[in-house]
Amino acid sequence: MIRNTIRDTVAAITRTCSGEDVFITDGEDVCLPNRGIIIGIIKDLRRVIFPGYFGDENISSTMPDYFLGNMMTEVYEALREQVELAFFYERARKRVSPERTDEEIRSHSARICEEFISRLPYIQEMLLMDVQAGFDGDPAAKSKEDIIFSYPGLFAIYVYRIAHELYRRNVPYIPRIMTEYAHGKTGIDINSGAVIGKYFFIDHGTGIVIGETTQIGDYVKLYQGVTLGALSTRKGQQLSGVKRHPTIGDHVTIYANSTILGGGTVIGANTIIGGNTVISESIPANTRVSMKAPELTMNTAVSDKNRIWD
Amino acid sequence: MIRNTIRDTVAAITRTCSGEDVFITDGEDVCLPNRGIIIGIIKDLRRVIFPGYFGDENISSTMPDYFLGNMMTEVYEALREQVELAFFYERARKRVSPERTDEEIRSHSARICEEFISRLPYIQEMLLMDVQAGFDGDPAAKSKEDIIFSYPGLFAIYVYRIAHELYRRNVPYIPRIMTEYAHGKTGIDINSGAVIGKYFFIDHGTGIVIGETTQIGDYVKLYQGVTLGALSTRKGQQLSGVKRHPTIGDHVTIYANSTILGGGTVIGANTIIGGNTVISESIPANTRVSMKAPELTMNTAVSDKNRIWD
Amino acid sequence: MIRNTIRDTVAAITRTCSGEDVFITDGEDVCLPNRGIIIGIIKDLRRVIFPGYFGDENISSTMPDYFLGNMMTEVYEALREQVELAFFYERARKRVSPERTDEEIRSHSARICEEFISRLPYIQEMLLMDVQAGFDGDPAAKSKEDIIFSYPGLFAIYVYRIAHELYRRNVPYIPRIMTEYAHGKTGIDINSGAVIGKYFFIDHGTGIVIGETTQIGDYVKLYQGVTLGALSTRKGQQLSGVKRHPTIGDHVTIYANSTILGGGTVIGANTIIGGNTVISESIPANTRVSMKAPELTMNTAVSDKNRIWD
Amino acid sequence: MIRNTIRDTVAAITRTCSGEDVFITDGEDVCLPNRGIIIGIIKDLRRVIFPGYFGDENISSTMPDYFLGNMMTEVYEALREQVELAFFYERARKRVSPERTDEEIRSHSARICEEFISRLPYIQEMLLMDVQAGFDGDPAAKSKEDIIFSYPGLFAIYVYRIAHELYRRNVPYIPRIMTEYAHGKTGIDINSGAVIGKYFFIDHGTGIVIGETTQIGDYVKLYQGVTLGALSTRKGQQLSGVKRHPTIGDHVTIYANSTILGGGTVIGANTIIGGNTVISESIPANTRVSMKAPELTMNTAVSDKNRIWD
Amino acid sequence: MIRNTIRDTVAAITRTCSGEDVFITDGEDVCLPNRGIIIGIIKDLRRVIFPGYFGDENISSTMPDYFLGNMMTEVYEALREQVELAFFYERARKRVSPERTDEEIRSHSARICEEFISRLPYIQEMLLMDVQAGFDGDPAAKSKEDIIFSYPGLFAIYVYRIAHELYRRNVPYIPRIMTEYAHGKTGIDINSGAVIGKYFFIDHGTGIVIGETTQIGDYVKLYQGVTLGALSTRKGQQLSGVKRHPTIGDHVTIYANSTILGGGTVIGANTIIGGNTVISESIPANTRVSMKAPELTMNTAVSDKNRIWD
Amino acid sequence: MIRNTIRDTVAAITRTCSGEDVFITDGEDVCLPNRGIIIGIIKDLRRVIFPGYFGDENISSTMPDYFLGNMMTEVYEALREQVELAFFYERARKRVSPERTDEEIRSHSARICEEFISRLPYIQEMLLMDVQAGFDGDPAAKSKEDIIFSYPGLFAIYVYRIAHELYRRNVPYIPRIMTEYAHGKTGIDINSGAVIGKYFFIDHGTGIVIGETTQIGDYVKLYQGVTLGALSTRKGQQLSGVKRHPTIGDHVTIYANSTILGGGTVIGANTIIGGNTVISESIPANTRVSMKAPELTMNTAVSDKNRIWD
Repeated sequence: MIRNTIRDTVAAITRTCSGEDVFITDGEDVCLPNRGIIIGIIKDLRRVIFPGYFGDENISSTMPDYFLGNMMTEVYEALREQVELAFFYERARKRVSPERTDEEIRSHSARICEEFISRLPYIQEMLLMDVQAGFDGDPAAKSKEDIIFSYPGLFAIYVYRIAHELYRRNVPYIPRIMTEYAHGKTGIDINSGAVIGKYFFIDHGTGIVIGETTQIGDYVKLYQGVTLGALSTRKGQQLSGVKRHPTIGDHVTIYANSTILGGGTVIGANTIIGGNTVISESIPANTRVSMKAPELTMNTAVSDKNRIWD
Repeated sequence: MIRNTIRDTVAAITRTCSGEDVFITDGEDVCLPNRGIIIGIIKDLRRVIFPGYFGDENISSTMPDYFLGNMMTEVYEALREQVELAFFYERARKRVSPERTDEEIRSHSARICEEFISRLPYIQEMLLMDVQAGFDGDPAAKSKEDIIFSYPGLFAIYVYRIAHELYRRNVPYIPRIMTEYAHGKTGIDINSGAVIGKYFFIDHGTGIVIGETTQIGDYVKLYQGVTLGALSTRKGQQLSGVKRHPTIGDHVTIYANSTILGGGTVIGANTIIGGNTVISESIPANTRVSMKAPELTMNTAVSDKNRIWD
Repeated sequence: MIRNTIRDTVAAITRTCSGEDVFITDGEDVCLPNRGIIIGIIKDLRRVIFPGYFGDENISSTMPDYFLGNMMTEVYEALREQVELAFFYERARKRVSPERTDEEIRSHSARICEEFISRLPYIQEMLLMDVQAGFDGDPAAKSKEDIIFSYPGLFAIYVYRIAHELYRRNVPYIPRIMTEYAHGKTGIDINSGAVIGKYFFIDHGTGIVIGETTQIGDYVKLYQGVTLGALSTRKGQQLSGVKRHPTIGDHVTIYANSTILGGGTVIGANTIIGGNTVISESIPANTRVSMKAPELTMNTAVSDKNRIWD
Repeated sequence: MIRNTIRDTVAAITRTCSGEDVFITDGEDVCLPNRGIIIGIIKDLRRVIFPGYFGDENISSTMPDYFLGNMMTEVYEALREQVELAFFYERARKRVSPERTDEEIRSHSARICEEFISRLPYIQEMLLMDVQAGFDGDPAAKSKEDIIFSYPGLFAIYVYRIAHELYRRNVPYIPRIMTEYAHGKTGIDINSGAVIGKYFFIDHGTGIVIGETTQIGDYVKLYQGVTLGALSTRKGQQLSGVKRHPTIGDHVTIYANSTILGGGTVIGANTIIGGNTVISESIPANTRVSMKAPELTMNTAVSDKNRIWD
Repeated sequence: MIRNTIRDTVAAITRTCSGEDVFITDGEDVCLPNRGIIIGIIKDLRRVIFPGYFGDENISSTMPDYFLGNMMTEVYEALREQVELAFFYERARKRVSPERTDEEIRSHSARICEEFISRLPYIQEMLLMDVQAGFDGDPAAKSKEDIIFSYPGLFAIYVYRIAHELYRRNVPYIPRIMTEYAHGKTGIDINSGAVIGKYFFIDHGTGIVIGETTQIGDYVKLYQGVTLGALSTRKGQQLSGVKRHPTIGDHVTIYANSTILGGGTVIGANTIIGGNTVISESIPANTRVSMKAPELTMNTAVSDKNRIWD
Repeated sequence: MIRNTIRDTVAAITRTCSGEDVFITDGEDVCLPNRGIIIGIIKDLRRVIFPGYFGDENISSTMPDYFLGNMMTEVYEALREQVELAFFYERARKRVSPERTDEEIRSHSARICEEFISRLPYIQEMLLMDVQAGFDGDPAAKSKEDIIFSYPGLFAIYVYRIAHELYRRNVPYIPRIMTEYAHGKTGIDINSGAVIGKYFFIDHGTGIVIGETTQIGDYVKLYQGVTLGALSTRKGQQLSGVKRHPTIGDHVTIYANSTILGGGTVIGANTIIGGNTVISESIPANTRVSMKAPELTMNTAVSDKNRIWD
């Protein structure tokens, strides 16, 4: 009985799969990139950029360059394979034109990954400034080590900075897998297409959304629940490539749960956006913006003695 | 010294456990379901419903039906055992009446799990529509593959659709373990009791809460931070089973951080709820609702040159 | 070619590391605590405090005290080593004065960890009250088992109560690693410095922030998106140690997405804070506070037949 | 093509299985014992009997009794389940008569496993004498620790002494799985049915065979390649239960590669059997037996200069 | 100091590697087959041929064909990749002529692996006869299950029968990796080139050597320590391909520790070779051969009372 | 009941342990070396000496020196810790005099491990000659890769050459753990104290024993079952340090199952020892030694038609 049920279910699912172009069908010689390996790359690179913090390696002893070089070689190999898979799959789905040959895909992937490796020192420097930003900006940070070890904001920025290098080079699928991994771990959703300056600090962070075409200057600080979003996505894929998300100037601070919407919205430099604010038009530089909070209604009639809660 | 401390601590904890009915005491022949195995079922089923995306299997080659059939058989066996454990434990806690015999629990569990398997093709079809909804609705989605691989909204909906089948069949403990697993991974909390239509899209998603008695129509789209909640939970368990959460019509879009409360609240079809809105009464169909945003206060006195942040 | 790129990248990263005091340099005989082991301690302790729920152990059979005693011994050993590492590393970074000797660090660490173990029965009792609070307060909770297994709020409180014991004893790095682990898993960010009473319930929880100097009484209930935060962190590290976060009285309920800010802000006992409220001044006891919601704008012009979404 | 091949192969193997009574067929509600778990029991018990040697446990610290008690509880549970499986499977194959009921099998298994646990102190004492025998008997042993850690002879004896307790209690399948595991690891094949006295030493050991009905006294020492075997197995299963292997008295030493055959063959106490000897009749006590080695033929004609080897 | 030592050692090893053709040098685009994966194939195939014995699969339930088909598909894929690697590597080392193209290697590997899969039912049938042989021939075998689970002889034969299929198809490296894996586990060294008939039984087995050009008929039984070897290997690689090992007729039994040498040596059918015999010339059929054992020397002077051992 | 049994068993074992000096007792601040880590070192070093063969590393690509350097650093760290543990434990057992201070043990261990690393190129060269010896000497070797991948003889020699470096430096426990690991894997028991020349080949190997004080020249070849042993070990530990095992000259070949005994026994250069020979006195150089095989007894009375086996 259960046998028949399973047999029928297999048949039904197989039938559905063969009619949907998101599934690889029988005989197609392609393969999707491997999410597990991509997440492994994120973990390995973190040990390269913050050596001593996230693995079992004892960096103090003997020879950090061997450790770093070996790790980077492994990352290069693994990433190159995934980037190739991504391009091959994309071609099989006819999403690029003109088509690259196999050889072109291979050499293009190798070139991208080599460039990627060469960007790591820059990324490390940016991240060390982000760590400094966190330490300077948060009295609850007891040390910079706390930030590297524990701050979800730093982790999300780290993954964003890694993924952005691949986004810029038009690698499909992989940047999104990376940033959504960070989103899952932190509740901070930074699209890899966003452009973000140096000395960036996210405090607490849960609920932050930074859309694909957002631009953020230097010395910017965001709190939890901030959305830098689009006004409407009604037109769906027709909006693909259009600037839909705001531009944030240097030295801007945006407090918790504020929402800034729209591709034409520019927040000028040095401006401070108070918490729970909703903004969909540009704000000049050097401004403090806050929302006139609605009046509170207070009612002191709460009285019954034995209740525990409302 | 530490010996004595440990000995005393063991004694104290053992004593506490023996007085609390949430702990299995000595000689009771029951066992809680295993959270790790239940999470394993979620992972395995994802490979059944989106073959090729989440495991190491090479679906293109040879014989997907063997892969699917084997996976389903394993899932069936594992789930059946967990469902049995759940019912046995529930009976031991005297939470059902009249009591089922051992044999009844076993055959009932088998029947539920067989029905569950037979629902998988339906669930897959629903999810493929959810994928389409995501692609149509989000200009940042480069492909449907991005959505399957990476979108937390899709993951949360996937787990909900699985868990809901068990909720409907009154399986204790397991549906909640499932949806809270997704909640932890995504920040999206969909109670397995909610009823949700087809072509459902959640964008970004962190902070979404969808309560147990919520009803959601077809073609609905939610953004991050949306709460579909209860007005008050003051009465606690007395409210168990009462409709406490809203009803959302077809083709409704609810923008970020909006809150809709109350079991009698109905949002009519085709209505659009703007961001940051708080609603606790019904809204007719074909309406655009937005909150008159409080005025912004702008203060351009920000000036000191050397500061980095506010 | 890639060889040269890797070689140059290794050199650049090595150079950067040697100039930054967050990295251990060559020959330094210190080591950072190990994040993986600290997370392992959290997982093991959960099996001590809620025996039967989170491991493969069959608690019903034979001898729970051996299980508990063995687990506690392992936790004690592991924690002691991590606490030592934390103090040694902190000393190497010259962040404490006067310096402790090696021997003092070792015996101090042992004493802290022994005290920690002796607090476990108290922590267990507190958590069982928190479980009761969840069951009493949430009609969607089918059982107390659901809460122990699945509720992210309980997990966050559990980790907080563990970490707080170490925070109180001035252990560096580790409390933060613990609470940020819970933050990542649940979206609930409770700083280990906060002081929280008994019978505490967090429902849903994603997006909650409870700052370092927050004080929370007994019988308090929080919903998702609540921030108990600071008014401004402009002064950064100068504010370290200053009370910056509010004080919440007994029997207070704070509904979803409300924000309460400021070290001087006191919410009196028995008060109910409605959802989406922003408060930065004290509220007397026995008050119901709600925000006068801005008017809704309704526009029934939504009409075009063929659209799927806005 | 490969599809068809796999399909045909599956069909052929399924067909063969359904016709062989060593395979469980469809719908049979039995299950073989699990070899992996049985090997796990051997590994765990080694940590009980030689605490500190084979696990990561730090025995010096705190509380060995918790460690031992927890380990034993786990072993008891795992063994009981495997013993039950073995008896259930044996019954399903109709190899016992009269049949036990389910309940009898369960209580019988529990009783056997409890007795087994109660034998552990005796087994430990025997093994510590075996360790002493190794140290006294082998000048290459630098310490008794070497013997516990490394000597394959001790490992084989350890497994034999464990398995023998189950053999004596007529547990099917499991004793053989145990001793063959040791055989694979050491090249020493001791049938669990053999009866072996105290202070037993095996040096080097590879190639040793000790048959099922062998009896070995106290203070016996064996070298590699010794066979204590049957004269002929021509009658196969008709010989089952018949004494087919020799009896070795106290204080006997048998040097390398000697063969002693036959159920009626008795080697008297204090006797020394030289290397490469073949014996199939009884030897009185207090005898040195050696084989008159055949003459060596020496031929000094080996001469060609450039060869490396013969 | 240790730094310099490591640096020098790396340099020395790198230098050696670059001068040896067994190492892959820089830029060579080849790769050795992966021993771990090949061993994995052996383990997986064992679950196909003896379903229910060696994995966690519950064969009784539901659908063995899915299990078998899925396993076989995985084995086919894994084996094909390893066979390709082996041929590519062999070509890179110029050990085959004329060279195959890439495409030829790929299609040849696929064909070999398909043939291999199609041989599995035959191999299973042969092995079931080997199991029967073991049961009939060994009074210590309590059941055929004992033999499948535990007998090292059966394991060695199983691996030989698998590896022989690849040997016959001239696959390099892999057959040897397979049989040496079995050799390591059992002490039984069967070269994959040997030709072995049906109903073959090896008892105990440690120390058995069966050379590459050995031929063994049906119904043959071997005991531990038997060598079927070459007379001399003085000429080394010049002997490659020459028949160097004996031919054993049907129904032959060879008792323990006997040695039969030489490519021209034929043991006639029905012959029984006694233990400890050395034979280097042919023996007619229907013969019992035993070695006239040298006389034993017995010396009853062993007397001193207090000794433990000689 | 089982509770009481476990409790009593724990008590009995604890009591026994406290009376035996091979167990660490309560409060002792020592720890045994970790067998698992030592085996890990053997596995890692094999990847250093035969890069490309035993791990997943892709040596052809990019940068082998990083791989080698990283691996060696890890081995150095792990070995140093184990060597320290071994010396500390030995001191606690009062087996060395005069006692070293903690600091002396640490610096002595570091020095030994540095020397060990510096010997790796020499060991690699020796092993490459051993590989060549295997290829030259065995017509069944299809390639040198076969030997590196698969030959148990090479594995045993590899482990011996590693362990011998530690034996020479008087490191306790660890050399034996290493060579017995190889013994278990191969059936070849080479004591780490033996001295073995270059170009050494072991064919098949199961059952080989090479005693602690054996000396073996260059170009020596051994077959399975060869014992290079002691005449008598009657005096036990009194013989510790005495030469008890034979000396084998250059270019000697010893065929299968031969036994050479005695510390004064010298086999001269270029000598060939035939199979199944027993020797306990010196043999001059350039000699072929064989044992006059005892006559065979042939009896052609084997006749009954229906038998399968004897």
